[in-house]
Amino acid sequence: MGHALCAALCDRGAVVQGYGRMPEDEKFRDPRVVWSNAVFSDLSALARAVEGQEIVFHLLSSSIPESSNRDPAEDLFANVFPTVKLLDLCRTGDVRKIVFASSGGTVYGIPATIPTPESAPTEPTSAYGINKLAIEKYLALYHRLHGLDYHVLRIANPYGPGQSPFKKQGVVASILYRALSGRALEIWGTGDVTRDFIHVDDVSQAFLDAVRYDGEHRIMNVGSGRGRTINDIVADVQDVLGMPSVEIVRKPARAADVPVSVLDTALIMRTTAWRPRVAWLDGLRNTAAWVRSTYEL
Amino acid sequence: MGHALCAALCDRGAVVQGYGRMPEDEKFRDPRVVWSNAVFSDLSALARAVEGQEIVFHLLSSSIPESSNRDPAEDLFANVFPTVKLLDLCRTGDVRKIVFASSGGTVYGIPATIPTPESAPTEPTSAYGINKLAIEKYLALYHRLHGLDYHVLRIANPYGPGQSPFKKQGVVASILYRALSGRALEIWGTGDVTRDFIHVDDVSQAFLDAVRYDGEHRIMNVGSGRGRTINDIVADVQDVLGMPSVEIVRKPARAADVPVSVLDTALIMRTTAWRPRVAWLDGLRNTAAWVRSTYEL
Repeated sequence: MGHALCAALCDRGAVVQGYGRMPEDEKFRDPRVVWSNAVFSDLSALARAVEGQEIVFHLLSSSIPESSNRDPAEDLFANVFPTVKLLDLCRTGDVRKIVFASSGGTVYGIPATIPTPESAPTEPTSAYGINKLAIEKYLALYHRLHGLDYHVLRIANPYGPGQSPFKKQGVVASILYRALSGRALEIWGTGDVTRDFIHVDDVSQAFLDAVRYDGEHRIMNVGSGRGRTINDIVADVQDVLGMPSVEIVRKPARAADVPVSVLDTALIMRTTAWRPRVAWLDGLRNTAAWVRSTYEL
Repeated sequence: MGHALCAALCDRGAVVQGYGRMPEDEKFRDPRVVWSNAVFSDLSALARAVEGQEIVFHLLSSSIPESSNRDPAEDLFANVFPTVKLLDLCRTGDVRKIVFASSGGTVYGIPATIPTPESAPTEPTSAYGINKLAIEKYLALYHRLHGLDYHVLRIANPYGPGQSPFKKQGVVASILYRALSGRALEIWGTGDVTRDFIHVDDVSQAFLDAVRYDGEHRIMNVGSGRGRTINDIVADVQDVLGMPSVEIVRKPARAADVPVSVLDTALIMRTTAWRPRVAWLDGLRNTAAWVRSTYEL
């Protein structure tokens, strides 16, 4: 998401300072972005990166939901603590607004309502989700105390070009890569786990729109509003690639998974011009093309 | 609250290990309590204190709402981080249940509903409130992940014997002390700020009841359910002490104050035998007696 956003910003003429884990592989680096390759907790590097910036997009996280539960104290220290320090830097510096990538799939926990609106209870089942939620509350606090403007995007499951097929997050890229490279497809649990997939280009657009938004709603879901199961993805990937007889391997369910996560996107659609523009099968096709060209399949 | 709870536990035959800031003045120390006089962040001292314990009551905080906003990052580090470490100690040790003193006056923020039920939105206006809320979420997480039993009491404004008249928290003790010592009474703001005052003996009883409670509701408001303004307290103190003509000084309102905080206590009253037993004027009288005897007025 970060790299897609950087590219979208550069395309529009912004001067972009990146901060965090720089892509190891040179082919993923955008030469237009000045990059600080530092860990979040390096507060002096963070201060240098924030200096003179007008808008801060905060997408940095050291963990994913599953890994965050192994050591919640460390996860808190690595993510929430430096975020509050970042807010201190923003409020004392020239930053006009901070836009935060929260997590529509984890802040609600096991949702009582599907699709889930922003007003639903927030009962995270992972340290990752608790951290995202706590950061939302600190943003509201700094706005109240110091007038620092902010916007929170509770983003559904992003997919699209740039998503690594080799990490535990990113089921779409993983399934595409395995299918395209002739490997068996892996399904965690029964395959009925349901997620709301949103194309990374739509996510980038939501970040850009958030900068200009000045209404009263500061927390917005960003998703397709539609649920798809892992079994759906496998079937659609087979269709799109024209590979009807791919081998499927079933693996154990993951502990941090909530069974269903689909976001209610009525608020962002009612109050802004943002819409999900990339149709699902088109998104699968352009992600497949990116996987194919990137990994020389 | 901690010292009253220790006394109530000792009265019932419990072996009590205290941890945190020991009272500086010897007259406030209970000889029945073994005390570890350590800061929360001293994790090896914390480990020694938790070892072999069956029930942990967590009432420790390094700040009050107002002071917490001066340095939210430090407040997070001093309170939430060691709490998560404490949960790690509890789950790997013999601890059966942890009972947490959350804050009915700060987790909700500016309440949309008065009196405020547990299901109300939680939008704290202080780092203190954010910390309390985050800790509630970590308790739920550790229960889910590791089966550590817990109970959260969202406590209203406690008052009663033992409350220092000299701190920024504790308006009842402060007003009583000033009246009894012939000083002018201080009112912050217009005096219309409304709070839900609950006697410390009732709070102790709620902690004791929480140990035995094994129903499905893990977060409960603890309060009188009735709002009283600062002006009400001043009038009632004048009545109880028989001092109709005390001088009153008005001071500026405090930034972290929410205008009204009154808790809806229907849940705890419906699901447990707990009731507020100490009538307000009786509570004022026994607090006055304690202030008089303690400070030799």
